[in-house]
Amino acid sequence: ADNIVLISRAFLRQFVIPEFEEFCSRIEKIYNKCKGIHLGKVASYIPQLERMSPDYWGVSLCTIDGQRFSVGDTKIPFTMQSCSKPLTYAIALNELGSEVVHRYVGQEPSGRMFNELVLDFNKRPHNPMVNAGAIIVCSLLMELIEKEMSLAEKFDYVNAYFKRLSGNEYIGFNNAVFLSERENADRNNALAYYMRENKCFPEKINLRDCLDFYFQCCSMEADCESMSVMASTLANGGICPITGDQVLKPDAVRDVLSLMHSCGMYDYSGQFAFSVGLPAKSGVCGGMLVVIPNVMGLCLWSPPLDALSNSVRGIEFCRELVNIFNFHRYDNLKHAPNKLDP
Amino acid sequence: ADNIVLISRAFLRQFVIPEFEEFCSRIEKIYNKCKGIHLGKVASYIPQLERMSPDYWGVSLCTIDGQRFSVGDTKIPFTMQSCSKPLTYAIALNELGSEVVHRYVGQEPSGRMFNELVLDFNKRPHNPMVNAGAIIVCSLLMELIEKEMSLAEKFDYVNAYFKRLSGNEYIGFNNAVFLSERENADRNNALAYYMRENKCFPEKINLRDCLDFYFQCCSMEADCESMSVMASTLANGGICPITGDQVLKPDAVRDVLSLMHSCGMYDYSGQFAFSVGLPAKSGVCGGMLVVIPNVMGLCLWSPPLDALSNSVRGIEFCRELVNIFNFHRYDNLKHAPNKLDP
Amino acid sequence: ADNIVLISRAFLRQFVIPEFEEFCSRIEKIYNKCKGIHLGKVASYIPQLERMSPDYWGVSLCTIDGQRFSVGDTKIPFTMQSCSKPLTYAIALNELGSEVVHRYVGQEPSGRMFNELVLDFNKRPHNPMVNAGAIIVCSLLMELIEKEMSLAEKFDYVNAYFKRLSGNEYIGFNNAVFLSERENADRNNALAYYMRENKCFPEKINLRDCLDFYFQCCSMEADCESMSVMASTLANGGICPITGDQVLKPDAVRDVLSLMHSCGMYDYSGQFAFSVGLPAKSGVCGGMLVVIPNVMGLCLWSPPLDALSNSVRGIEFCRELVNIFNFHRYDNLKHAPNKLDP
Amino acid sequence: ADNIVLISRAFLRQFVIPEFEEFCSRIEKIYNKCKGIHLGKVASYIPQLERMSPDYWGVSLCTIDGQRFSVGDTKIPFTMQSCSKPLTYAIALNELGSEVVHRYVGQEPSGRMFNELVLDFNKRPHNPMVNAGAIIVCSLLMELIEKEMSLAEKFDYVNAYFKRLSGNEYIGFNNAVFLSERENADRNNALAYYMRENKCFPEKINLRDCLDFYFQCCSMEADCESMSVMASTLANGGICPITGDQVLKPDAVRDVLSLMHSCGMYDYSGQFAFSVGLPAKSGVCGGMLVVIPNVMGLCLWSPPLDALSNSVRGIEFCRELVNIFNFHRYDNLKHAPNKLDP
Repeated sequence: ADNIVLISRAFLRQFVIPEFEEFCSRIEKIYNKCKGIHLGKVASYIPQLERMSPDYWGVSLCTIDGQRFSVGDTKIPFTMQSCSKPLTYAIALNELGSEVVHRYVGQEPSGRMFNELVLDFNKRPHNPMVNAGAIIVCSLLMELIEKEMSLAEKFDYVNAYFKRLSGNEYIGFNNAVFLSERENADRNNALAYYMRENKCFPEKINLRDCLDFYFQCCSMEADCESMSVMASTLANGGICPITGDQVLKPDAVRDVLSLMHSCGMYDYSGQFAFSVGLPAKSGVCGGMLVVIPNVMGLCLWSPPLDALSNSVRGIEFCRELVNIFNFHRYDNLKHAPNKLDP
Repeated sequence: ADNIVLISRAFLRQFVIPEFEEFCSRIEKIYNKCKGIHLGKVASYIPQLERMSPDYWGVSLCTIDGQRFSVGDTKIPFTMQSCSKPLTYAIALNELGSEVVHRYVGQEPSGRMFNELVLDFNKRPHNPMVNAGAIIVCSLLMELIEKEMSLAEKFDYVNAYFKRLSGNEYIGFNNAVFLSERENADRNNALAYYMRENKCFPEKINLRDCLDFYFQCCSMEADCESMSVMASTLANGGICPITGDQVLKPDAVRDVLSLMHSCGMYDYSGQFAFSVGLPAKSGVCGGMLVVIPNVMGLCLWSPPLDALSNSVRGIEFCRELVNIFNFHRYDNLKHAPNKLDP
Repeated sequence: ADNIVLISRAFLRQFVIPEFEEFCSRIEKIYNKCKGIHLGKVASYIPQLERMSPDYWGVSLCTIDGQRFSVGDTKIPFTMQSCSKPLTYAIALNELGSEVVHRYVGQEPSGRMFNELVLDFNKRPHNPMVNAGAIIVCSLLMELIEKEMSLAEKFDYVNAYFKRLSGNEYIGFNNAVFLSERENADRNNALAYYMRENKCFPEKINLRDCLDFYFQCCSMEADCESMSVMASTLANGGICPITGDQVLKPDAVRDVLSLMHSCGMYDYSGQFAFSVGLPAKSGVCGGMLVVIPNVMGLCLWSPPLDALSNSVRGIEFCRELVNIFNFHRYDNLKHAPNKLDP
Repeated sequence: ADNIVLISRAFLRQFVIPEFEEFCSRIEKIYNKCKGIHLGKVASYIPQLERMSPDYWGVSLCTIDGQRFSVGDTKIPFTMQSCSKPLTYAIALNELGSEVVHRYVGQEPSGRMFNELVLDFNKRPHNPMVNAGAIIVCSLLMELIEKEMSLAEKFDYVNAYFKRLSGNEYIGFNNAVFLSERENADRNNALAYYMRENKCFPEKINLRDCLDFYFQCCSMEADCESMSVMASTLANGGICPITGDQVLKPDAVRDVLSLMHSCGMYDYSGQFAFSVGLPAKSGVCGGMLVVIPNVMGLCLWSPPLDALSNSVRGIEFCRELVNIFNFHRYDNLKHAPNKLDP
C-alpha cells in the first residue's frame, strides 16, 4: 500500500523533490568533484580510526517522502563518534523535556577563542554538541530515565532508539574502538572530573560508568545509508520517512536542529552556519549528518579531516550544494534567481 | 493596478497568510498580553532616551505580499540605534560584496563570556551586529564605496538606502540624540582607537568622521510602520513588498539574516536563536526588527529594557508568537501539530 | 659545645636578634592581639579538617642562629597540606637542578583572574605553588630522582628530607587525611588528566601513583615548632640552624623563596607581596610558613580561613609584624625611622 | 665638609662597597662582555626613537653613600619613557599616600596571558607600571595634589621632583618625542577612553590634558648618570645620596620597589623577578633603572630591545651581575659560597 502511495505521488509529481532523477545527477556531479580532493588527515589518536582508508567517500540522501539516493562507499560501517551527540541529545529531550535537560547543559556556542573554559556562566557545559555537554547528556540518559535499569538495558535502550531513527537499517557496535577510546581518554576524564567537582552531574553519578556509556555511544556504527535515514527523520519532524514511526516529538527535533545549526561543526560552526546555513553534525570518523528541514537528510562520509576536525570532502560538498540549490537556511525561496529550487 | 492585484489575490486566498484577519486578531491578543508587563528600565545613558515613556508599545507587521497590520504606538518616531546595524551591513554587502566586507569584520558570535575581547583571532571585530563591527562597517561605507563624496553626500547615500528599504515611509534624523551620543562615547572611542591600533580599518580613515557617521546612523529615526516594511524587505529577498523595488541582492539579504539569527540580540543572541529561532535585531531604543523569511517583517517597539538591553515586551511578544505559530526556524512545517500554520 | 657557642654569642650580643627577650615579648603581644579575632571558616571539604577547633592558634619562631620562641598551640600536629609544596619543590631543585625542574613547571604567578587556565603559554603549570605545579613536582620526584625505588622507598626519601629540614623534630603522617583527600579529588584528577593530555608529565608516568604521592605529601604532619625550624632552614640558605646540616643548596633555597614571595598565598599572593613583602606559603590546614631571609623562620597556625583560603589570624599576624619591624622585603634598613630594627 | 666625610669613610673602609675599585673593574668586565652582543631591535614606532644608534651602551652606578662609576655612553640624553612610571608613582604615593593612590590602581602583576584585559576585578588598572596604571597615576598628580595649578605649574611640579631625585643632575625634555607620542597614541587613547567609561579616573578629568601630561612625563630626558642617582635615591630609602635631601618617604619607596620587583619588566617581569631578583623598570628607550636596596642604584642604557621590549644588553648585564654578586633578593647573605659579597 505504501508503495502505491509512493508511485501515485511520483506520478503526480507531488514529491518534495519533483525532478528527483535530475536532482540526483547533480548530486553525483558534486560527489565526483569532491572525490578529486586529496587534502586532510585521517584521525590518528586511536589505531582503529587511523587505519581507515583516506579514499573512502560516500554520500547517501533520503527525502522526507522516502526517496533515496546513494553514491560511493555508502555500505561500509564506521563508528558514529560525535555524530551520535545530536541523537543522544534528541533522546534526552524526547524523554525528559527541554526544561529538565537544559538545567544541566547550555544552548549556546562556546565562542571560538575559549574552548579551554569548559563551563558557561551558569556552571553548565556550553551545549550538547561538545564533549563536556554530551557526557552530561549521557549521564541524564543513565540517571534520569529509568534509573533502575542495568547498564546493559540502558545501552539497549539507546540502541533501540538509534535503530528506530534509522528505520531499522544498519546500526552496529565496534568494541575495539570502544576499548581504544577508553584507553585514550585523558581529556574526557579531565572534563568529567572537572564537571563533577562543579556539581554539573545529577547526584551520585558513577563517573566511570558514565564515561563508558559515553564512549559506547561514540562507538556505535552506522553506514551512510542508515545515517541518511536518521538525518531524514530529523528533517521530517521526528517521523521516520521509511517506517512512518513517530520516533521523536517535534519540539525535541526543533531543539536538536537549532543546536546543530549553531554548534555542530566544532570551531567551524559559526562559519558553517554563515556560509552553508544548514543544521549538521560532524565526527572524527569523517562522517557528517546534514539536515535540510522539511526536505531531506544526508550522510556524507570521508575520513580525511581538516585542522578543525571536519571532513574535508564533507565540508566542500556542503558548500557546493548550497551554491547550486536554495538550501541555505536564509536563501529566499522566491527571489534567489541564481539558485535552483529542486 | 497594484491594488487590483492585491484584491484579486485576496479573493483567491493566494496570500502568504490566507486568513489575514484571523491572524491579526491573534497578533492583537499577544500585543495586549504583553501590554500588561511593567518590567524593565528605559535606557538612561543619554537624556533623550531616558525621557521616553515606558508605556509606549507598538507592533507593526508587513507581509511579503504587502498586507499590513499595526497596533499601539506605531506612528511615534524613535531613533533606530542598533537596529540600524543590519541595514548598514546590508548596504555594505550590497555595494562591496561579502568577500570584501568580511575581510574587515567576522561572521560569528563573540561568545557570551568575553565581550571584553574586542577582536577575534583574525584581528577583526567579531561580527557587524556589535558596536565594534558596526563602526568598521561604517568606515567601509565611507571609504570604499564612493570615497570622493562629501560627508553630506555619504550621509544622503545611506539615508536614501534606508528610505528605499522602508518603501519611502517615515525616516527621520534626531540631531539631539546624535549630539548626545557623541558626548557619551567613551566606549565607542575606546573601541575605535583600539581597532585603529590593530589596523582593522581601511587605510587613512579619519576616526572622528567615522565615529560621527556611526552615531548618525544610530540617530536615524523610524516608526514601527516604516521599520516593519524594512523588515519585510529582508523577509522578501531584498525586494520591498510595498514598492516592488529590488533594494538588496538576495545574497546580501541571506548574509544579513544569518548574522541577525546568531548575533542580533546582544548577549541573549544564543538563547534567542534557540528558543525563538528568528532573525532579529534589537536596539537600546527598545525597538526590534524581526524577520520571518518568506512570510513577513515585524517591528516591535517598547522602551523598557531587560538586563541584556533587549526590549522586555519585545522579547515576550516573540516567545508568544513562536509558541502559537510554526515560525521558529526549525519548527517542522508539516508535523508540528501543536502549532498553527497561518 | 654548641651550647657554649650560643651562650658566648648571647653574651657578646652577636645574635641576629640581639635583644631576643624584648623581641619575643612584642611577638607575644601580636599573638594575643590576633587571638581576639574570631573570623573565618575552618576548611570543610574533608571531615578530618572540619573537626579542627577554630580556637587553635600557635606561633613558633626559630632564628638562623637557633634561638627559639613559641606561644600557643605549638605542639599539636596538623597536616601540612599546601605548606608541603615549597618543600617538595626545594627537594626537586636540590636533586635535579633548576634547569630540569623548570622544563616542567613555570616560575610566575598565574594572574588572579584566570585560575581556570591551568597551563601557561609553554604548556606548563604556572608555578610549583599551585596544585597543578605541585603534582608535576611530585612526578619529578618519583620519576627522575631514583626511578627504580619502590613507592615506599620514594615516600621514605621525601620523609627523610622533611625530617632533616626540621632538625629531626616532629614529622608525622595522617592516613585518614590521605584517604579523604584521595576520595575528594575531583579537581586534582581533572588537573592531572588534563596535564597528561598536554604531555606535561615525564613519560610513562602512572597517574594514580603520582596523585597518591601528592596526597601523601599533603598529608604529612608537623607542628608549629618543627615547621618553624623548616622555615628557618630556608631563611639560613639551606643549613638547618639546629643541626648545622646543609640540607639544601643555596641556589635551590633562592628559587624557593622567590616563588614563595610571588605565588605562595593563593590569589592573595600579589597583595601579600606588596603589603607584607615576605616569602610565605599557606595551606588549608590553617598553617603558614613564613621566612625572614637571613634572620628567622616562623610557623603560624590557626585553622579558620578567609575567602581566599589563607589563615585569618596568620595574615593579620604578618601585617602587624611588618608594621612594627623593618621586615618587609623593601623596607629600607637605615632610613625607616618609624620601624624597629630588632 | 661632605668630602671630608667621604674621605674619612673611605679611609676606614666603612662604605657599603668597601673595595670599590675592584668592584668597578668587575662591573667594567660585565659591561664589555655585553658590548659584544648585537641582538635586538631599536624601537621604531616613532622616528625619534628609531634614529637612536644601536651601538649606544652605557652603565652608571651610584652607591647609597655616593660613590659613583660610569662606563660607556653615560652622558647622552635619552627620553625616559616607561622609566618615568615608578617616579610618577613615587610622587603620587609621597603626596597622597598609598591608601588614596591604590583606590585608583592595583598592586599586582596582570598575568602574562591577558594583557588585553585592561582592568582587574576591582575595575582598576592592574598596577602603576603598565600604561593604563601610569595614565591613572598622572591623572591623580593633576587632579588631587594641587588642582588649581595651571598645566605649566603641574609640569614644573613633577619636573622639580625628578630634579631632586637625580640630585640636580641632567633632566631635560624632548618636545619632538612628545609630539610624536601624541600622534601615535591609538593604544593609549583606547585605554584612556575605556577607563573613563569604567569610571577609573577622578571625577571631571580632562582626558586630553591627562594624556598630554602622561606623554610629557614619558618625554622627559635623563642620562645614565642622572638616572643612576634616581635609582640610588630609591635604594637609599628616599634620601638622595648626593644631596642628602629626603625626597621621598620610606613607605613610598617601599611600595615603589615592591611593584618594580613584580611588574617592572613588561611581560618578562615574572621571569626577571625569579632569575635576577632586583627591582627594576625598563622603557622602550632602552633604559633600565635597577635598584639594589641599601646598596646602590644603576642605570643601564642600550636602545636595541628584545621581543618583550626590554633592552637586550640591559637584561644580560643584570643576569651577569647576580651571577657574580649576591645581589639577588633571595641570595643568602652568609651561605652563598659561590657568590661574591662586595
